[in-house]
Amino acid sequence: MTDDESVRPVTIAYIAESAGVSVPTVSKVLNGHSGVSSDTRARVEALIHQTGYRKPRPVLGRRMVELVFDELEHMWGLEIIRGVERVAREHRVGVVLTEFGPQRSAIRYWIDDTVARRPSCVVTVAQLSEEQREQLRAKGIPFVVLDPVNEPPAESPFVGATNWTGGRTAARHLLDLGHRRIATIAGPEGFLCFQARLDAYRSAMESAGPAVVVRTAVTVDAGHAAALDLLSRPDRPTAIVTGNDLQALGVYRAARELGLRIPTDVSVVGFDDLPLATVVDPQLTTVRQPLTEMAAAATELALALARGERAPQTGLELATRLVVRQSTAPPRR
Amino acid sequence: MTDDESVRPVTIAYIAESAGVSVPTVSKVLNGHSGVSSDTRARVEALIHQTGYRKPRPVLGRRMVELVFDELEHMWGLEIIRGVERVAREHRVGVVLTEFGPQRSAIRYWIDDTVARRPSCVVTVAQLSEEQREQLRAKGIPFVVLDPVNEPPAESPFVGATNWTGGRTAARHLLDLGHRRIATIAGPEGFLCFQARLDAYRSAMESAGPAVVVRTAVTVDAGHAAALDLLSRPDRPTAIVTGNDLQALGVYRAARELGLRIPTDVSVVGFDDLPLATVVDPQLTTVRQPLTEMAAAATELALALARGERAPQTGLELATRLVVRQSTAPPRR
Repeated sequence: MTDDESVRPVTIAYIAESAGVSVPTVSKVLNGHSGVSSDTRARVEALIHQTGYRKPRPVLGRRMVELVFDELEHMWGLEIIRGVERVAREHRVGVVLTEFGPQRSAIRYWIDDTVARRPSCVVTVAQLSEEQREQLRAKGIPFVVLDPVNEPPAESPFVGATNWTGGRTAARHLLDLGHRRIATIAGPEGFLCFQARLDAYRSAMESAGPAVVVRTAVTVDAGHAAALDLLSRPDRPTAIVTGNDLQALGVYRAARELGLRIPTDVSVVGFDDLPLATVVDPQLTTVRQPLTEMAAAATELALALARGERAPQTGLELATRLVVRQSTAPPRR
Repeated sequence: MTDDESVRPVTIAYIAESAGVSVPTVSKVLNGHSGVSSDTRARVEALIHQTGYRKPRPVLGRRMVELVFDELEHMWGLEIIRGVERVAREHRVGVVLTEFGPQRSAIRYWIDDTVARRPSCVVTVAQLSEEQREQLRAKGIPFVVLDPVNEPPAESPFVGATNWTGGRTAARHLLDLGHRRIATIAGPEGFLCFQARLDAYRSAMESAGPAVVVRTAVTVDAGHAAALDLLSRPDRPTAIVTGNDLQALGVYRAARELGLRIPTDVSVVGFDDLPLATVVDPQLTTVRQPLTEMAAAATELALALARGERAPQTGLELATRLVVRQSTAPPRR
């Protein structure tokens, strides 16, 4: 190549011209299709190699990903946003964030505005209606459901966490420490994640001791009320597995009020590993849900679908992991 | 009006036609400009009243507000996002969220991508360079600085909190309880908000007792280290004012390690009122910084500027407020 040529951008048309063939012929070679003589193919391939030509990445709509929440009140909202932002930076894609808000007031116009914005794809923590999903499909906007709390629609790609395995790990940890009177404060009915954690607790306890279950809201106050009940019983549990970290902090408050020490008198295991788990005293033993990584994986998957790639799988659960800190110990003799 | 007419949308052209005048004449009446006879003005005004005509709101660029953070690691990120989302819902404006990220990697392309997206306005928690501000001005994209940690550029609209007043309230609260040996763990130098809080502490202490100051990072670990030092001194303070809630939780940890009870042996006041303030035991007395309201005010201001309205003021500080909970009490005799 002469210097003059080197400043000209290498396009598929340039390669076609240089090889003396048509653009569709170059395209066939690039995409590995048949219908090209081996002679021509060799010539085109040599030019592709010489010029360092690369297929441009397909345009991703307006190079934006839409991220949607029902409400941002939960403490894990920021963990999810960070994961999406990280991947968006890597792909240089903008992030449009929508919170449907109290009474889900934004839901009426969201789908219209989203379709009008023509984003590359959607990552949703919110529950979309079948009608909304249909509109996204009709417009060719792929979407991925993140951390589904309900049964995700069969054909929707989703990213979740291994809630069942995590719940089992929490109970196993306490059994291994020697506990037998282990109660659980579980999250409310109607959420897959809490059901999976509870089921895992039950099956881990099967041959070890009686299952003692209280189901309640995943808040500090609800955990506090449930723990006051459990810890005032004559056959007081020596350990409590909770449905999330906030409930675990409710157990902290109840123990303090009852003059019980953690972990000496009662061990506590949370779920999520929110930032506050390392801030409280004693630091909380909990099952880490990799929210940031889950959000990053959901965004990568959505962008891959936007590029027209086939998803390697429609659903994906990222591994949870027990993080042992200071709130668990063997039971007192 | 007949039924037939009522279904026709009321436009400025419709009013001009009905009044038998030109569109510019109606426009003059609507905008209170001169050059219209009192007779014509009366006829047009009557029609405006009759038809219930309203001036359409000016188009706001692409009806998007850009929200920019350096890093979302701080626990107050979500409080800010919620305030912006609330106002965005009210105005039906999309929110594009950008985190510059570690090493501020996204900052290189952010301004180009933002200008290309043509948002209505920008709300920035991140530090923009003078060059970036210049580019936004050149493109007519107004921006508002939220919670400036450094001296905001003179001509930039900004929204902050009354840090000095808040810091003073915290110290006054402890003095009113009867404390005299009050130390402060203050935030690092180079941040206006921490400087204002520290100055207020100093002036409140002026005639009350010696000022004891440790400046350090606003983290649990830094607060812990500083508190271990302060609480091990022979003239141990009976109360500590901290630069933020995380430092206050560091004091909790140090007190626990030293066998001191809060508030019996040492009172603690935080700053921010993060969600965790009500989650820890004892619940934290702290100065509430209305982050959500500040973010909402910044967004309203930015959107008003985008509509071409003149800002009623270039800078705005929202009031902080002491929230008394369980971590403060009179000193032991």
